[in-house]
Amino acid sequence: MQPKIAISVGDLNGIGIELILKNHKKISKLCKPVYCINKDMLISCANLLNIKIPKNIKLYNTKGKFKVEPSKEKKASGKYSYNSFIDGINLCKSNKTKAVVTLPINKKSWEKAGINYVGHTDALRDIFKKDAIMMLGCQKLFVALYTEHIALKDVAKQIKTKKLTKFLLDFYANINSDNIAVLALNPHASDNGVLGNEEIKINKAIKKANKILKKEVFKGALVPDIAFTPNVRKQYNYMIAMYHDQGLAPLKALYFDKSINVSLNLPIIRTSVDHGTAFDIAYKQNRKLNSKSYINAVKEAVELIKNRSK
Amino acid sequence: MQPKIAISVGDLNGIGIELILKNHKKISKLCKPVYCINKDMLISCANLLNIKIPKNIKLYNTKGKFKVEPSKEKKASGKYSYNSFIDGINLCKSNKTKAVVTLPINKKSWEKAGINYVGHTDALRDIFKKDAIMMLGCQKLFVALYTEHIALKDVAKQIKTKKLTKFLLDFYANINSDNIAVLALNPHASDNGVLGNEEIKINKAIKKANKILKKEVFKGALVPDIAFTPNVRKQYNYMIAMYHDQGLAPLKALYFDKSINVSLNLPIIRTSVDHGTAFDIAYKQNRKLNSKSYINAVKEAVELIKNRSK
Repeated sequence: MQPKIAISVGDLNGIGIELILKNHKKISKLCKPVYCINKDMLISCANLLNIKIPKNIKLYNTKGKFKVEPSKEKKASGKYSYNSFIDGINLCKSNKTKAVVTLPINKKSWEKAGINYVGHTDALRDIFKKDAIMMLGCQKLFVALYTEHIALKDVAKQIKTKKLTKFLLDFYANINSDNIAVLALNPHASDNGVLGNEEIKINKAIKKANKILKKEVFKGALVPDIAFTPNVRKQYNYMIAMYHDQGLAPLKALYFDKSINVSLNLPIIRTSVDHGTAFDIAYKQNRKLNSKSYINAVKEAVELIKNRSK
Repeated sequence: MQPKIAISVGDLNGIGIELILKNHKKISKLCKPVYCINKDMLISCANLLNIKIPKNIKLYNTKGKFKVEPSKEKKASGKYSYNSFIDGINLCKSNKTKAVVTLPINKKSWEKAGINYVGHTDALRDIFKKDAIMMLGCQKLFVALYTEHIALKDVAKQIKTKKLTKFLLDFYANINSDNIAVLALNPHASDNGVLGNEEIKINKAIKKANKILKKEVFKGALVPDIAFTPNVRKQYNYMIAMYHDQGLAPLKALYFDKSINVSLNLPIIRTSVDHGTAFDIAYKQNRKLNSKSYINAVKEAVELIKNRSK
């Protein structure tokens, strides 16, 4: 049976609602989507887009009413996108849906609406009081981030054996794989300590985690600039990067339009597109709409639901 | 007229000499190669490889004699590879050749031979007492490294407006392009100072360099994990990375087997393959030899010779 999945609509001044309307048929083959938006708002958007609302569409009545203003950072649209997201979470909490797929919000609009999170993942951490793990990618390659939105100069200090060991074990508990690569921190994985020494701690964490799991799940520490070359990456579907750009620059170089964002290590399942509100093309005519990330986000949610029910 | 190019043979226990012998015909269409190896050593290698020496091959008599031992780190082969390299440099210095293309050496063998450089670029810096710029890539994308072989934790400190401005101007003087991207240091280019603040210095350096050049040559600072996505990278053939893995991980993810290594900002022109001695496959039968990097290194040397004579 197809699982029910909540879809939060994101910022209605952005591209999310067009993705929803244009892909409903496809998405309905993968799951039973429940869109967190009320009928009036949906009609407004559909009229603006000149798209017919599919007949069999199922809505969750996210409250609120405002005038959609394409491509504008507005308090009202910020607030509505947050409410849609919270409704999606609550549908999962009460087990009415098995996952939530989120469409992009606008940070500035959240700020204007007094919502003090930098994004979905940040909000999820606070709501569930759990160390959510941010993972991006596609079926060919997923990359999880050990550190995320911090200055580059602060990354090395965060490499701690105990903390990393916990991260590895948390990650393993969420992923259906016994073969996970862990990246080194320094160029050439430090060349045996010549260029930094954090690899000692990384290698210790790998050993500890493998010992606890009683199998060699984690491999590494891999030389970062070699890890993404064709011969190495074909050996792994999952990699753990020590910092944001180490993982995401190669990932996006390779699989930009396919990639999605997954929040792991939470009581609920959440996946997301890996792009923003695309204000530059929202509600515009005569351009192509790339739906790969949205469709992959739904596919991955279905996959994670399957894993969890095993 | 085709330019004369010196080819240093690299570690004869490695893969370099096979690349030379198997590609001589192709290379001869691009330039007049002068291989820095004496006849006896060439015959030994050719016999071991069971390859006939091309008739019209031109050698420079690099002195030395030793027993080639495939895939072994040896003092003698380390010393010979260094001598071949130095002969190549001297041919350029005396204007007998217009560039030197280097085949890979083995660091450990250099160490055993008492040669205290970590590699060719390091040696070139010392020999010419100049800030050589390391650039890697292929025609589609070249990436120059502002910092190279240093620990990640030390990178942020090296971002200094004056030093970076000089680097940008030096780079420009070596490259035939008025459109060069400069990468930011921090994730999201710091999100306006939220994640680090080195972008202030980077942006100042960009402005200063453009002002001195009286044109907008340098663009940025680009968000690092977006810079290598298809839409952005098609806008640039040259990028400047703030640190080793920032540039090389995405570059090698995209163009691993095509890439070469170029030393800029020196009195001589030097290009190199972007791989090692490949001891795992040296002198072996029944496997494919990938010559793309070697051929591209020669092509780029020819290109740089043309630029310089303009």
